[in-house]
Amino acid sequence: MNSGVGDMSYAENSTIQIGDPFKQKMIASFAKTARQEAAVDSFRAAICPTKMTIADLGCSVGPNVLQMASEIFEAIEQASHQLNRKPPEMQVFLNDLPGNDFNTLFSLLPEFHKLRERKLQESEQEQVHCFISGVPGSFYGRLFVSKSLHFAYSSSSLHWLSQVPQMQLQDGSEVPLNNKGNIYISHASPPSVFEAHKKQFKRDFSLFLKCRGEEVVEGSHMVLTFVARRSSDPSTPPMGCYMWELLAKALMDMASLGLIEEEKVDSFNLPWYEPSMEELKDEITIQGLFSIKKIELFEVNWDDNSQEAPRNDHNYNPMAKSAQTMAKTVRAALESMLKSHFGEAVIEKLFERYCFLLEEFYSKNKSEFTNILIVLARK
Amino acid sequence: MNSGVGDMSYAENSTIQIGDPFKQKMIASFAKTARQEAAVDSFRAAICPTKMTIADLGCSVGPNVLQMASEIFEAIEQASHQLNRKPPEMQVFLNDLPGNDFNTLFSLLPEFHKLRERKLQESEQEQVHCFISGVPGSFYGRLFVSKSLHFAYSSSSLHWLSQVPQMQLQDGSEVPLNNKGNIYISHASPPSVFEAHKKQFKRDFSLFLKCRGEEVVEGSHMVLTFVARRSSDPSTPPMGCYMWELLAKALMDMASLGLIEEEKVDSFNLPWYEPSMEELKDEITIQGLFSIKKIELFEVNWDDNSQEAPRNDHNYNPMAKSAQTMAKTVRAALESMLKSHFGEAVIEKLFERYCFLLEEFYSKNKSEFTNILIVLARK
Repeated sequence: MNSGVGDMSYAENSTIQIGDPFKQKMIASFAKTARQEAAVDSFRAAICPTKMTIADLGCSVGPNVLQMASEIFEAIEQASHQLNRKPPEMQVFLNDLPGNDFNTLFSLLPEFHKLRERKLQESEQEQVHCFISGVPGSFYGRLFVSKSLHFAYSSSSLHWLSQVPQMQLQDGSEVPLNNKGNIYISHASPPSVFEAHKKQFKRDFSLFLKCRGEEVVEGSHMVLTFVARRSSDPSTPPMGCYMWELLAKALMDMASLGLIEEEKVDSFNLPWYEPSMEELKDEITIQGLFSIKKIELFEVNWDDNSQEAPRNDHNYNPMAKSAQTMAKTVRAALESMLKSHFGEAVIEKLFERYCFLLEEFYSKNKSEFTNILIVLARK
Repeated sequence: MNSGVGDMSYAENSTIQIGDPFKQKMIASFAKTARQEAAVDSFRAAICPTKMTIADLGCSVGPNVLQMASEIFEAIEQASHQLNRKPPEMQVFLNDLPGNDFNTLFSLLPEFHKLRERKLQESEQEQVHCFISGVPGSFYGRLFVSKSLHFAYSSSSLHWLSQVPQMQLQDGSEVPLNNKGNIYISHASPPSVFEAHKKQFKRDFSLFLKCRGEEVVEGSHMVLTFVARRSSDPSTPPMGCYMWELLAKALMDMASLGLIEEEKVDSFNLPWYEPSMEELKDEITIQGLFSIKKIELFEVNWDDNSQEAPRNDHNYNPMAKSAQTMAKTVRAALESMLKSHFGEAVIEKLFERYCFLLEEFYSKNKSEFTNILIVLARK
């Protein structure tokens, strides 16, 4: 993941996660209400504690991190006032991998605290006091003290696997995937590629549930949103997001130009999986630690329908704009992974090509892709 | 403070705080025992909790941060075994200002957790499980949820004030200090400079105690070490560490070479204070939240007495080595502050000169300076 500053950074390129105005009807507000309701349910389940601990799992960098926390504070404040209770002190844990740019995230805090301080002084109703800390580590492992969390949420993270899936041989040993010319599950991938991804996701998601199950208190809730797939037919491998198909194509184009070796593309695979709703339900049921309060698929698109064509700009091309946004977002997420596998020299050209392919795709297809929202309650 | 990597970084230049072998008899081991004992006392006072929360206040960056935490784990493990209890889960909060290089600090964690995992597997006795997070913010303010900390420690940080002291006029308004040619209290400073520093320290330290008083549980302990002064005579201003006198001299030398403006030196003052034991006792007593379990002064020196002259190196000069170490350490701590006041261009030459002055000083004087160790218990 790129560090959090500069034009190519995640903070500047996470419109979907941030939920800027034109995405408001999508992930942001969709999950916002769910998060607020689940946070309040957790607060009530703990019988209005004086201290409440919440965690953002896979927070990354950017203003959306603090925005999501603020929305939860608001909901808890309102619930407290309705119950005629003093709002609790909130301990907020912002989690991501140790390589996340916590420095940039933390640099936003002084301003955030200043704004909250002002709100505290201006508001007639009592506000929560919040204490924010960063927790470096993988959520596919223990991150928090046992029975310490009242509420946890994860936004646009759980489609990332803990590692690139490996193929298991009959003797139990593991070897790299045989996925020539692709970087994720595609039509051309053999069934073993799909199986390996599915297996890795099952292992990761089950570990995620087990660890959180130990960390959260009884009655606490979790709200998870991530990329998923509509098709649940196990006989046909899922298509995979068009974004990976096109990135694989862009990589193969670089190979045919002689800029990278084709073998390098063959050996590159993404630690990514889009589970179906059934797979998720099965895994949650097998684990048995959480009950499903809500589970639903929803569509997100990258179309730049936020703004009309700028006045007097007859060349304005909303599809080109969408393609640029998408290319930048993918670059922010994958640049370091791609650099270390293919070398730095090819990156600029690769993303130029990727952007071109995206624009071509958007001229014929919708940019929609599927996400899932899951609300869980600890039994 | 410089970020945590590279030759000029704090992590590479904090020998005194790290407590490398030749300083072992100094701050490190001196405070190590105190920290371990106080942590165990806190653990017993909480009647051997299953979860224990500890905080490093002003942790900075570097391996010493995790070393100190490990030493506390060991003490708690031993105490648990003696009491035939399962060691608690440990929540460790590493605190420093938001500008601290948390990214570098967090990058040390995967290796640290791997080592602990190995220890866990190899040891016959049960070890603590630890959960580490970073808390960006000033310790001259609230950092943690009320009554949540079992043990806190601060190593070599509390001599830094929250801001450069200001002089108060009779009408209550504040103006910059009149401390021509100096950057800290010196023989040449008017009494008002000393008074302003003393007042700022009093305000800061009292706020520190008040905030911690709200955050720690009853019976919990704090171990504080920082630079202090022996003289308690209020009629004579303290001399201040020779290191600031010499840095002021180096700055004035830059001014006389025309590399910086003399007015710039006049308007630069350090947010630093070395309190006397009496001032500290008074403040702790006035606050009334903590009782003093131990308070003592001890000397630390920067002499490079760790190693004998390298073989065949007839030019080896231990005083030059000490001067270099000291100059690098001060540079790591102050470079960003100096850059923003004097500009980047002068820094290299300034520290060359500073190093020369230090070597000259060490040829006639010991490099000793005074620290204080305070162990407090929450009433």
